[in-house]
Amino acid sequence: MSVLAPTQIDDILAQVKKKAFEETANEPEPKLTGEVKWPVTAEIGRGLENAVTNETKVGYVNGAKGWLNYRGYDVFNLSQFSTFEETSYALLFGAMPTAQQLKEFNEKLAANRKIPAKIIEIMKMYPITETHPMISLSIGVSLLSTFDRTTETLTVEAETEVAIKLIAQMATLAAAVARIRSGKEPIEPDKDLSHAANFLYMLNGKKPDKGAERVMDICLVLHADHGMNASTFATMVTNSTLSDMYSSIVTGIGTLKGPLHGGANEQVVYQLEEIGNLDNVEPWYRASREAKKKVMGFGHRVYKSYDPRARILGPLVDIFTADPEIKRLYDIANKLNELVCAELGKEKKIFPNVDFYSGLVYKAMGIEIPMFSVIFAVSRISGWGGRVLEYLKDNRLFRPRAVYTGPMLAEYVPIEKR
Amino acid sequence: MSVLAPTQIDDILAQVKKKAFEETANEPEPKLTGEVKWPVTAEIGRGLENAVTNETKVGYVNGAKGWLNYRGYDVFNLSQFSTFEETSYALLFGAMPTAQQLKEFNEKLAANRKIPAKIIEIMKMYPITETHPMISLSIGVSLLSTFDRTTETLTVEAETEVAIKLIAQMATLAAAVARIRSGKEPIEPDKDLSHAANFLYMLNGKKPDKGAERVMDICLVLHADHGMNASTFATMVTNSTLSDMYSSIVTGIGTLKGPLHGGANEQVVYQLEEIGNLDNVEPWYRASREAKKKVMGFGHRVYKSYDPRARILGPLVDIFTADPEIKRLYDIANKLNELVCAELGKEKKIFPNVDFYSGLVYKAMGIEIPMFSVIFAVSRISGWGGRVLEYLKDNRLFRPRAVYTGPMLAEYVPIEKR
Repeated sequence: MSVLAPTQIDDILAQVKKKAFEETANEPEPKLTGEVKWPVTAEIGRGLENAVTNETKVGYVNGAKGWLNYRGYDVFNLSQFSTFEETSYALLFGAMPTAQQLKEFNEKLAANRKIPAKIIEIMKMYPITETHPMISLSIGVSLLSTFDRTTETLTVEAETEVAIKLIAQMATLAAAVARIRSGKEPIEPDKDLSHAANFLYMLNGKKPDKGAERVMDICLVLHADHGMNASTFATMVTNSTLSDMYSSIVTGIGTLKGPLHGGANEQVVYQLEEIGNLDNVEPWYRASREAKKKVMGFGHRVYKSYDPRARILGPLVDIFTADPEIKRLYDIANKLNELVCAELGKEKKIFPNVDFYSGLVYKAMGIEIPMFSVIFAVSRISGWGGRVLEYLKDNRLFRPRAVYTGPMLAEYVPIEKR
Repeated sequence: MSVLAPTQIDDILAQVKKKAFEETANEPEPKLTGEVKWPVTAEIGRGLENAVTNETKVGYVNGAKGWLNYRGYDVFNLSQFSTFEETSYALLFGAMPTAQQLKEFNEKLAANRKIPAKIIEIMKMYPITETHPMISLSIGVSLLSTFDRTTETLTVEAETEVAIKLIAQMATLAAAVARIRSGKEPIEPDKDLSHAANFLYMLNGKKPDKGAERVMDICLVLHADHGMNASTFATMVTNSTLSDMYSSIVTGIGTLKGPLHGGANEQVVYQLEEIGNLDNVEPWYRASREAKKKVMGFGHRVYKSYDPRARILGPLVDIFTADPEIKRLYDIANKLNELVCAELGKEKKIFPNVDFYSGLVYKAMGIEIPMFSVIFAVSRISGWGGRVLEYLKDNRLFRPRAVYTGPMLAEYVPIEKR
């Protein structure tokens, strides 16, 4: 592992932000903002495209400009100036914390990071190596709820406390899953480390240097929230029956697991490995296009411009290119990016998305590919929590309709006459 | 337990059906049917009311007429003539089975009912008595997936097999949860019993008589599917990321758990117990109305008429009224039903829903109140499976939008200046 000093990371972030704002200055103004008068008229496409679920102050994606904000703060600023802890606080509570509030929040996180020993014991009892780590994470969260007696009545206050606990414990669970899968003993959290540093420490067994801690922290900030994506939405649907925060987060994990969502960055790395070398990028790309095969890591339902997270994550990979293996894959990725943007960028508005570079960053930090979506969950828990809590304050059960196209009043024919 | 012979149950069902069709003959024709041209214009209310998710041939709720059908067969006929196994087959595969197909399906269910001993072992390792049984059921399903090596590639065929396994195993898991919670040893399934009889046998430790088997079977048939309810919908959202059937069903369980959904019938029984005696029904009801307190078991987002499931479940309770405790609660329920229908029925279109009598039926069969929503899941698995498989054939990620009402481009103020 080889990284620049945190201040040099700041320079990268400042440049990326400047470029992003310059490039998108003339793009249209935000849509889907402002007060809502229910009911809302919408032209709904398949997959609930354009359907409107709720009003929110948690965060916003401006797909035309390629802006992502949480609580009004754009992610360029948050990556440069904030931390995952502070960002999580803002997502849950609606505003940036004062120094005292952040101190108390960090103390709560530190006090809650440890997970019950029974959960570790159970994780060793089923075939965890052959199990998708997201399934193990989900079992872990469900088990956490069995040890928590504070959740009997569902209130905003109680659910908020659970969300804070889960932000703390998700990283510990994730690291335990990674280690037990590889036949290693889990490592207990260190109360003096930040969330990002703790996570790397519990994953790798040694305390990370400042650069690696910073990069992991930026990754966690960048993945913390993203509008009404499928896992966030599913999490809210579960909570809208007034189930409970743990069950809702389990839904989020199960939904994020899919390759069309959190599992996508794993596919990107496999794809780069399949391409193999720089000379093969163009032939591979042409063959994919001809075969109408999807090129992983490009295009997004909402972004019709360069994904701000890809803008940030791309240059972060560069930090690790002293490692020849990362250098090779990074060169391939950049060449592929260039080809896709030149051909599909302006014309079809297809650009790299968050998944295109995030897998490379994780790989560069020594994390195994099957763990990538788990890291996503370790971060997204804050967005899930923030949006669930916001919706709970004025909850209404999600209950859409399907259109029935089958027969009516079919005659029941006894089985012997079928 | 004291029940009539199955043929007498047939008479009850035939009468209920006749009455339902007569009473709703003049209600308007079905809506939300026929081919769809995407995009669909809709007036979306909060909670995605009126939003259209997909086309389906699985089943349909006609809220105006109070009709529920699965695959075109109304639930009155299915309760009277079909079984849970046959109904589940139709929900998964699109049509009623031939005798041979049903034989093979039943053999698959029988072959898959047993659950790994490790899961029983794990259930004894966390505080299961203090844990909501739906959480335990969810842990059980996740653990089942860790023992299943057939799910690595997500295809309609593989997911269909998982759905069949889960229909079989959900009842076994549910019964194991109920017994371990009460400090009893789980009972293994009996390969010669029907699904309903097996479930009661594994719950109670003795083989049920034909009447009880029949009543449980009807309950399972009646709860198997119900349009785009919150748990079915959430299950589909999870699967739409191409996650996997186990994770999707875990989402369904977590969503069904909420008191606004599967947990509602528990509340109804507590409410009847709170009312306590027949003389207190009217004063209790008047007091609730004055305090604007919700009366549990009435009203439904979709039904603006008498819920067909309540039509069937009501008279089924009558079978068990030799038990004075059931008689007392049943009398209270009927009196309350009368009052609500007289006052709110025609005017506000508020009628009893499925939850109003289902809890009493389960209580009459000796099942503990916290297990009620688990029985719901043991049945609804078939609808979840059928709808997930249908959507998977032409999958599109569910990705709606929220409307952002917060600030934009907020200035990041350093923490020491806040």
